[in-house]
Amino acid sequence: MKRPIHGGNLAWAAARAGCSPSLILDFSASINPLGPPKSAIAAIASHLDNLVAYPAPDYYPLRVALSQLHPPVNPDWILPGNGSAELLTWAARELSEREETIILTPAFSDYQRALRAFNARIRECLLFGADGETGNNVETCHGASGKWVDEGVLSTPTQGGCCPTVIINSPKKIPQPAPTLPLVPGKNQGLLLNNPHNPTGQLFDKASLLPYLQQFALVVVDEAFMDFLPPDQQHSLIPLVQDYPNLVILRSLTKFYSLPGLRLGYGIAHPERLKRWQQWRDPWSVNVLAVAAAIAVVQDQDFQHQTWDWLPTARSHLFQGLSSLPGLHPYPSAANFLLVKSDYSCSQLQEHLLKHHRILIRDCLSFPELGDGYFRVAIRTQADNQRLLEALQSVINYKL
Amino acid sequence: MKRPIHGGNLAWAAARAGCSPSLILDFSASINPLGPPKSAIAAIASHLDNLVAYPAPDYYPLRVALSQLHPPVNPDWILPGNGSAELLTWAARELSEREETIILTPAFSDYQRALRAFNARIRECLLFGADGETGNNVETCHGASGKWVDEGVLSTPTQGGCCPTVIINSPKKIPQPAPTLPLVPGKNQGLLLNNPHNPTGQLFDKASLLPYLQQFALVVVDEAFMDFLPPDQQHSLIPLVQDYPNLVILRSLTKFYSLPGLRLGYGIAHPERLKRWQQWRDPWSVNVLAVAAAIAVVQDQDFQHQTWDWLPTARSHLFQGLSSLPGLHPYPSAANFLLVKSDYSCSQLQEHLLKHHRILIRDCLSFPELGDGYFRVAIRTQADNQRLLEALQSVINYKL
Repeated sequence: MKRPIHGGNLAWAAARAGCSPSLILDFSASINPLGPPKSAIAAIASHLDNLVAYPAPDYYPLRVALSQLHPPVNPDWILPGNGSAELLTWAARELSEREETIILTPAFSDYQRALRAFNARIRECLLFGADGETGNNVETCHGASGKWVDEGVLSTPTQGGCCPTVIINSPKKIPQPAPTLPLVPGKNQGLLLNNPHNPTGQLFDKASLLPYLQQFALVVVDEAFMDFLPPDQQHSLIPLVQDYPNLVILRSLTKFYSLPGLRLGYGIAHPERLKRWQQWRDPWSVNVLAVAAAIAVVQDQDFQHQTWDWLPTARSHLFQGLSSLPGLHPYPSAANFLLVKSDYSCSQLQEHLLKHHRILIRDCLSFPELGDGYFRVAIRTQADNQRLLEALQSVINYKL
Repeated sequence: MKRPIHGGNLAWAAARAGCSPSLILDFSASINPLGPPKSAIAAIASHLDNLVAYPAPDYYPLRVALSQLHPPVNPDWILPGNGSAELLTWAARELSEREETIILTPAFSDYQRALRAFNARIRECLLFGADGETGNNVETCHGASGKWVDEGVLSTPTQGGCCPTVIINSPKKIPQPAPTLPLVPGKNQGLLLNNPHNPTGQLFDKASLLPYLQQFALVVVDEAFMDFLPPDQQHSLIPLVQDYPNLVILRSLTKFYSLPGLRLGYGIAHPERLKRWQQWRDPWSVNVLAVAAAIAVVQDQDFQHQTWDWLPTARSHLFQGLSSLPGLHPYPSAANFLLVKSDYSCSQLQEHLLKHHRILIRDCLSFPELGDGYFRVAIRTQADNQRLLEALQSVINYKL
């Protein structure tokens, strides 16, 4: 079985660990450990009778429910998808019609897949590279007009883990200015970025993204992890979508609500654009159980608040725990995962954790800018995080 | 709400009927009324815990299970999809690279959607038109070399319904020779057809399809309804797929197993082609409950045999019942639906059936070749079929 290029491949992990997939403690997929909410499972169970009918292709009740998450966005501006990954495919098709599309690297590997599917011209702009010095590496961005990262925040953590914990304790300071990108005047350029950024966890400040909407012919912002921030701390561009027909937002429901197996995401963009996508794809893309679950969970405020209460503390504890381990250096994150620089080979670390502890971490071998010196871990419950820290301690002490 | 262009839109029907969608007796979607099999629902219910994990992108256990339906096809030749409609999109993308693609009309409206999504050049070849005289209409097929339909079988049923019932009682006589199509020597042509054909129910003889594989650069055969025929009566091209890299078969699991809300189909084609499709679409296209249900149902031989036992008798009874109603003339069918020529306006017939009987039939307004003089009905259980016949009798007697 080939090494996976995405997190969450439990079949692969189970084969390596020599156990059943259900016994793997998965830190590789960035999924909310508090879910799925009971409201989702109840909705699914009570809609099994609906499987005998096709979904209604207009998905109107679902679009209404989703619109209530984002007032004053109208349901016509929302298109549900079979996971946000399905919608990424169609967004990439539109980006491919631009002269070139800029992506910030390291990037979620499915961006390359989707853009290449339609022969898009891709320009990679290095946000963060293997030497951990973001400020310098931005020069490889073919024309970037200078440093953009606050080095006080994202520079290489020093040995011993003295990452600026003030950031962790002051989430309002997390947003970073967006980078200056290599614009070519008169060129029809597209931009695909995610916010918060995966795998670094970096959150871009909304105000600093605004100029992109003027500068780029098409801006696709993947906000798959934005809902992990409480509403007053989000830096979503959704409130701008009705003013910018060149703006597309992609959102996921399955990470926050822990239902990646069900497949449900949505896009927010101009209705004409979404109508075009609907003609490109088949009429019944979202299954009826995903519809039922989504309508239930977007109203589940208890679950939402539990998650917003859990994450900052759990993230802070895991960050501190990782920082205190010799040779591991986590980066501050606004999302539900942490990128960790490691003095050890991460593929070996991964192998030991799997074989001896049935724990799966996300290696970064599929991010060419990072390679074997980095790994990514989801934030899980306090008990799970502790198990990871102890396993890492044990592996570092005895194996490496 | 706009009149739907597909069957099975219960939200639309319920709004017309003024009742809940669950109260509509749906003859418009061609779904097996015996299902879903208990094995499917049990598999879904027991896999709800799997929703917290992503599906494994290689879908290997599912591909193995599907390959067992079609020995000696190897799992590498099988790609599961989010309904066969998803795979139609990618098949259409490949057809769009041909100089033109021939489709037989009337055709499932999603063929046009998928081909147009990639700007394919489409040549329509009329199989069956509104005057019901197939043999004559084939001349509109821009170069077809002659009549192909056995007029003894598919000519217009005469008033009173004297359709050749010998066909119904002798299913082995149902297969028709495939039409001679307008080939242009040296032209890189594609072909998209379905077998059995929707909406006519016509089954093309496998041997007569063989020349297409030599003549066309790419042949896509949608066999969404083929599994309603017992294995010894099927005319699938699956056994040929390993000999013809230009052959693609699309199959559905959700019609036979009554799970259209779950979305599951599969394609069978050369592994290189399927790898290309996997790069075009996102990695997690099929949800984990569809995987679980599919693995269960393909092994459910009891359900398969119940369906093969039920269909011929139920179809024959419904055919006879419709034939005996004044002004209605069903056509023989190898599938689980009947196309019916009507002396009455079918949109009016549909309206009366909805409002007074909560029964939904499939109008044919979205098939321009058919229009208001035709409707399509699924074959349902004996009791449901009887309810339809009595409702039709009542509407014809009192309303039209």
